[in-house]
Amino acid sequence: MDVTDSKGETAFHYAVQGDSSQVLQLLGKNASSGLNQANHQGLTPLHLACQLGKEEMVRVLLLCNARCNMAAPCGYPIHMAMKFSQKGCAEMIVGMDSNQIHSKDPRYGASPLHWAKNAEMARMLLKRGSDVDCTSASGNTALHVAVMRSRFDCAMALLTYGANAGARGEHGNTPLHLAMSKDSVELVKALIVFGAEVDAPNDFGETPAFIASKISKLVTRRAFLTLLRTLGATCSLPPTQGAPAEYGSVASPHPCSVERAQPPAISLSSLELEDLVHVSRARKPPFLLSSTRDEKRTHDHLLCLDGGGVKGLVIIQLLIAIEKASGVATKDLFDWVAGTSTGGILALAILHSKSMAYMRGLYFRMKDEVFRGSRPYESGPLEEFLKREFGEHTKMTDVKKPKVMLTGTLSDRQPPELHLFRNYEAPEAFREPHISPNVNLKPPAQPSEQLVWRAARSSGAAPTYFRPNGRFLDGGLLANNPTLDAMTEIHEYNQDLIHKGQGNKVKKLSVVVSLGTGRSPQVPVSCVDVFRPSNPWELAKTVFGAKELGKMVVDCCTDPDGRAVDRARAWCEMVGIQYFRLNPLLGTDIMLDEVNDAALVNALWETEVYIYQHQEQFQKLVQLLLSP
Amino acid sequence: MDVTDSKGETAFHYAVQGDSSQVLQLLGKNASSGLNQANHQGLTPLHLACQLGKEEMVRVLLLCNARCNMAAPCGYPIHMAMKFSQKGCAEMIVGMDSNQIHSKDPRYGASPLHWAKNAEMARMLLKRGSDVDCTSASGNTALHVAVMRSRFDCAMALLTYGANAGARGEHGNTPLHLAMSKDSVELVKALIVFGAEVDAPNDFGETPAFIASKISKLVTRRAFLTLLRTLGATCSLPPTQGAPAEYGSVASPHPCSVERAQPPAISLSSLELEDLVHVSRARKPPFLLSSTRDEKRTHDHLLCLDGGGVKGLVIIQLLIAIEKASGVATKDLFDWVAGTSTGGILALAILHSKSMAYMRGLYFRMKDEVFRGSRPYESGPLEEFLKREFGEHTKMTDVKKPKVMLTGTLSDRQPPELHLFRNYEAPEAFREPHISPNVNLKPPAQPSEQLVWRAARSSGAAPTYFRPNGRFLDGGLLANNPTLDAMTEIHEYNQDLIHKGQGNKVKKLSVVVSLGTGRSPQVPVSCVDVFRPSNPWELAKTVFGAKELGKMVVDCCTDPDGRAVDRARAWCEMVGIQYFRLNPLLGTDIMLDEVNDAALVNALWETEVYIYQHQEQFQKLVQLLLSP
Repeated sequence: MDVTDSKGETAFHYAVQGDSSQVLQLLGKNASSGLNQANHQGLTPLHLACQLGKEEMVRVLLLCNARCNMAAPCGYPIHMAMKFSQKGCAEMIVGMDSNQIHSKDPRYGASPLHWAKNAEMARMLLKRGSDVDCTSASGNTALHVAVMRSRFDCAMALLTYGANAGARGEHGNTPLHLAMSKDSVELVKALIVFGAEVDAPNDFGETPAFIASKISKLVTRRAFLTLLRTLGATCSLPPTQGAPAEYGSVASPHPCSVERAQPPAISLSSLELEDLVHVSRARKPPFLLSSTRDEKRTHDHLLCLDGGGVKGLVIIQLLIAIEKASGVATKDLFDWVAGTSTGGILALAILHSKSMAYMRGLYFRMKDEVFRGSRPYESGPLEEFLKREFGEHTKMTDVKKPKVMLTGTLSDRQPPELHLFRNYEAPEAFREPHISPNVNLKPPAQPSEQLVWRAARSSGAAPTYFRPNGRFLDGGLLANNPTLDAMTEIHEYNQDLIHKGQGNKVKKLSVVVSLGTGRSPQVPVSCVDVFRPSNPWELAKTVFGAKELGKMVVDCCTDPDGRAVDRARAWCEMVGIQYFRLNPLLGTDIMLDEVNDAALVNALWETEVYIYQHQEQFQKLVQLLLSP
Repeated sequence: MDVTDSKGETAFHYAVQGDSSQVLQLLGKNASSGLNQANHQGLTPLHLACQLGKEEMVRVLLLCNARCNMAAPCGYPIHMAMKFSQKGCAEMIVGMDSNQIHSKDPRYGASPLHWAKNAEMARMLLKRGSDVDCTSASGNTALHVAVMRSRFDCAMALLTYGANAGARGEHGNTPLHLAMSKDSVELVKALIVFGAEVDAPNDFGETPAFIASKISKLVTRRAFLTLLRTLGATCSLPPTQGAPAEYGSVASPHPCSVERAQPPAISLSSLELEDLVHVSRARKPPFLLSSTRDEKRTHDHLLCLDGGGVKGLVIIQLLIAIEKASGVATKDLFDWVAGTSTGGILALAILHSKSMAYMRGLYFRMKDEVFRGSRPYESGPLEEFLKREFGEHTKMTDVKKPKVMLTGTLSDRQPPELHLFRNYEAPEAFREPHISPNVNLKPPAQPSEQLVWRAARSSGAAPTYFRPNGRFLDGGLLANNPTLDAMTEIHEYNQDLIHKGQGNKVKKLSVVVSLGTGRSPQVPVSCVDVFRPSNPWELAKTVFGAKELGKMVVDCCTDPDGRAVDRARAWCEMVGIQYFRLNPLLGTDIMLDEVNDAALVNALWETEVYIYQHQEQFQKLVQLLLSP
């Protein structure tokens, strides 16, 4: 049993390469040193099974107590499985010995996650509890490795599981330093969007922006510099200019080791430098306000979040910018939060103290599960997700501050009616009821009985995307931009207080912040007369036209910009309320159910550019939000 | 040629009864007394031709100079043509001798219009200039006759051409007195809706309400009394109760003579009387204000008119009530008038000083011309109508007061955009343009270049009802209730004034009146899941469901009540503007293109009831409108 052949392989090695796991099982019945014997390449039978992707062999070997901590040149069997992207084998090992997920290979001190070559392998480990920011011996995280290897999908998986985009690794390089020497605009955008700083210096005093200015490939350099310029990055020159010898340091060829940032070959032109120098940095605002939320605020602040499916990411990015600039969590900046559909889910996330960075990762991760298959999507995954995040039994009134309202469309009546899901008692209405008194319609649940996850699901039941949730259709049908309805609600709430003799509790609204999910550029369309086809070609256009007309009607009605914004602005100005509408113009039309990471990263990139371009507005907003 | 047969008929009589007009032509070549000779029944050949409906014979006879003023027992030939509803013959006579339209028959002194037996015949005369309120020898108008003969359609034709619903005829009876003895709720409603007074006494001191209380047929009496009670009619008892002999006076059997109101057979019960006595009269408000428009009003008033096709009649009826109560024309009560679609047409009518009573008749008359055939309707008749009413070359800025805005949907861009057709210069916008600067879209015409009729047509291009007018779709898509957009516009207009240093011209809004076109009761609907048919029956429902969903989306978006009203109310209350929303609940769903007179009369009846039930609100509104 311990006999080895010329390659140093035992019967176990042979059995693993064979077809029958029963042979292996028989071999393993008696304890034998061959079980863990390495061949001349340093591979134990378990290594070999992992390399070959033989899941069943792995299972049998582990049942025979084969050791997981036998080192081969590429590390332990788990590392071998990762190196060859053998998902089943890796899962088997981690399943049988959960510690293996944290095991570091002896040579590089790298965790299995460092070895992940694609998003699927990375996700598999992250879902099982792998530490996303774990460092190798050289100090690099898995994100450093993914960036250095230009693995965009893998980097996205890590980022969406919360990897630190600004982690300092070998030589003090952040992933962004490394990305600058790669030819991938997408990676650079993704890292910046997820919070990487463009002017964090490495151990040599080089910032990512500086490295970008030294890229030898002209097209890439120009692209990166343009990117950075749109964000207003400062091109800070490295303090140690005269250290070219350093650049020659040998980069290890191993996948888990990380190259030094490539040496700059061409210098930034003086003109380009000039351009950059007087552009200030958007994401580090010049003002620094440390005040926290004033509980005794004399005026109320309202936050309104539009609908828009996965484009809710744009709202998240805007909120992160506001939180960063104010140093205060959204929850504490606002007294009222209104949301429609995806905006409603985010309103609940704010209520339940979830960080926006967490929500950003969550949205990226969930979209693939929720928008699977074809429309209308199964609502199961969406509902599971909502239950997991908010709890299966959590009621709307379980958390009371800030006051939150989600819009829904009650479609069991004609005409349909707006319903607000609230975490407080609805104000009593003193107006004529819309409904005939003799019509017996079931009233919606009281806030104290309303399940949070159901409210989120009901607000986000976009027709044709999801099936309606009972009698509720997406709030976007009536209030895709919920600002007007939120202001109406607050007015009615205050009137109700006055009516109840609690006028002293009434606080005047002073700030309204309305966040959009990105808007597409308005484009000309040809007007098709959908009614009178004069020939077969016209007839064909008519079918198309009727669809177009339907789309146009829906677009008209659910456009969260345009008149919805004009009306809200005029209303606020008349009353003396400060109104802020923030909604980036996106270069392309992003669908509610977009699943392409690069497209979404690009939308967030455009959001960052928008934030930079509107920094004065953000500054003013933050000052207002923080003033007592 | 002058030879007569045993019936007193000449060759002309024979020729008229024959097939060939050539024979008649030959006969007529030479002057002959036989041409105008009456037969033993008193009929000339022309009478005979009219009776038989021989249009060509009538033409030839008239060309041969046959006389039109030969009296037969039933009057002149024109009356004969009317009696037998021979439209072509009547048209021929009126066409050859326009005076004939006014000719009164020797016996009753009745005009041809009195003899009209149906709406078509009446309209034919009215279109050619017949005097609608012309009286017969007994003092009755054509409306008296139509009512007495229970000719609802004919009465409607007369009313819509402006017949005086309160005309006092024989014995001082109004048409409503006469209608009370007929078994037609529709007629009673129509007369009241068109302004008949329920407590105008006749020569015997009897009011229509009193006559209703004496109707012998219990069901009818109860129906009428209920009707009157809903309007709060006072049941004033006749001063001359002891004059039963009068009731026996002989009523002429002739169609042009009018019966006395039928004698009351059963008296009103004391309970019913009591009910009626303390109900005040809605249409004669207790307050009487004679003040006219104050040119130096310190605050502005805004009138907003919803869309709704022919249901614009409801708005007209509401405005008539306001004008009646205030004694001031709408034009002078408001500084701003905003309208969508049919509301836009009415806004222009107000601007161009057309009386609302005229518009009411016009709407009833035009609907049959405009909504002819099937959807989408030919836009020609609508456009002709608009040109006729507003002039083919009239520009928006030709009349400057009050300021008027009509909503339209610019659909040459995606998303579509609201456009306001104004009779004043648009305020400059200081907001970000919605459209990409590199997109080259033709700007809409300036107000001074904008044709009035085109603006009306563009605002009223309801999809599927009419074809779009160029790049404009119905304003109702974006603002079926234009209140929010009108308030936005006024705010922007004032901001623009301030910006131009003309802040002294800014007047604060103090009253907003929003009139609807009637709303349907909200009814429960079953939620059809349009996405996952589980069997063929479900599949069938799905097709239906998809249509339902589309309808629901459109209903949601274009509902002029519901949230649109809640939002406007909250906005106004926050700013301290008095807000009035007047919109009667209708018993049935009236379509935009309803052509049934009875259905429309009923909607207006419900409007009258609504006005009565909301008289306090109307009273408050009128006082505010008239205060300086």
